[in-house]
Amino acid sequence: MTLKLYELVGTDENRPFSPFVWRTRMALAHKGLAAQSIPWCFTEKEAIAPHRSDKVPVLLDGEKPIVDSWVIANYLEDAYPDRPSLFGGEGGRAVGRMLNWWGDVTVVGGIFPRIVADIPGHLKPVDAAYFRKSREARLGKPLEEVTANRDKAVEGFRKSLDPLRLTLRSQSFLGGATPNYADYIVFGPFQWARVVSPFRLLEEGDPVYSWRERLLDAFDGMARQSPGHEV
Amino acid sequence: MTLKLYELVGTDENRPFSPFVWRTRMALAHKGLAAQSIPWCFTEKEAIAPHRSDKVPVLLDGEKPIVDSWVIANYLEDAYPDRPSLFGGEGGRAVGRMLNWWGDVTVVGGIFPRIVADIPGHLKPVDAAYFRKSREARLGKPLEEVTANRDKAVEGFRKSLDPLRLTLRSQSFLGGATPNYADYIVFGPFQWARVVSPFRLLEEGDPVYSWRERLLDAFDGMARQSPGHEV
Repeated sequence: MTLKLYELVGTDENRPFSPFVWRTRMALAHKGLAAQSIPWCFTEKEAIAPHRSDKVPVLLDGEKPIVDSWVIANYLEDAYPDRPSLFGGEGGRAVGRMLNWWGDVTVVGGIFPRIVADIPGHLKPVDAAYFRKSREARLGKPLEEVTANRDKAVEGFRKSLDPLRLTLRSQSFLGGATPNYADYIVFGPFQWARVVSPFRLLEEGDPVYSWRERLLDAFDGMARQSPGHEV
Repeated sequence: MTLKLYELVGTDENRPFSPFVWRTRMALAHKGLAAQSIPWCFTEKEAIAPHRSDKVPVLLDGEKPIVDSWVIANYLEDAYPDRPSLFGGEGGRAVGRMLNWWGDVTVVGGIFPRIVADIPGHLKPVDAAYFRKSREARLGKPLEEVTANRDKAVEGFRKSLDPLRLTLRSQSFLGGATPNYADYIVFGPFQWARVVSPFRLLEEGDPVYSWRERLLDAFDGMARQSPGHEV
């Protein structure tokens, strides 16, 4: 088996930062699978077009391309059934679809406006220009205006994590006593923020902060050792 | 086996309305278990005090009391393992804890201020007085003030259901192709609303509306046949 993973990077090829790629990175580690990294930048659309995608992650298993982090997680679960399960059974996979949307809407969507202005500084000029233009068109204002009130706005984001916070009262991970893909869904966006932004999304003392620490330590500290900020 | 279920009712003993009891009712039906109903009203605290609870649902399995809808679901899954699974495996149970909190925070919490003023009309005078006093103390204003702007405020509630709505793009139920406890967690609050309030929480055409219809039809229309409003 030869696995290769297209990963979003900026000026530093060793600093992957996509929240979705980080979900896949954690899933691969969970399965005990190594993948060769193929660094990819925002404007390199033609590099992945043959794999029928314009976004990453794109996983290549031999010649076979698998596109989209949720599809990749399902593929890994089915293609490598003898390795540790990502979902803990079909019920976990089914409700995982909902958690994946919660992660996209609430976590990615809640973090994005808090860190977006920190991203262009990590990018090559051509990618920074593309990123700023496309995101400002979507947001309707300069990136710096979006993040300007983040010290206050982050309170709403923290509150939105209550279902996770309350769950951590009775179990260490969303997956139970040990982490699984449910955790990586939510952790990926936090790792994205850690890599590109010095902004403190979580307060120490928050159970979500401790949970993030445990995931930073997972797989011999894989996520913690990846270049990022102290958060 | 003799199962008995304390169920919250008002003036009509055949109109159980607690969102949490409805989770348990659906779970019992899923397991193919019949339980004798014990109607219970808000102020009858002494009736369930011997079972170490001041809230319902309280399930009695023989002499053994089980308290709290989440605990009951776990109990039923473990005590009746040969019957259809509520969680679809341990992964589904683990992440189900998170979905249960999402259901409490987002769904129960989002519906409550839209329907609360409709509840006292279903209660006996002593319970209506208790309900109004305790809830108005919590809310800091008359119940009618809380619901006054509901035609507008419901839009935020509908938006908060996006993770469910998006999930229904690719599967019929949170449990996958067929419903399981993940669905009952979210459906219970909708059935609560249907029983006590004529207010339309969902718009026809919303995938969440269609999903609710499917659950109203489940178990030979058990929830639909229970007295309630057309919603």
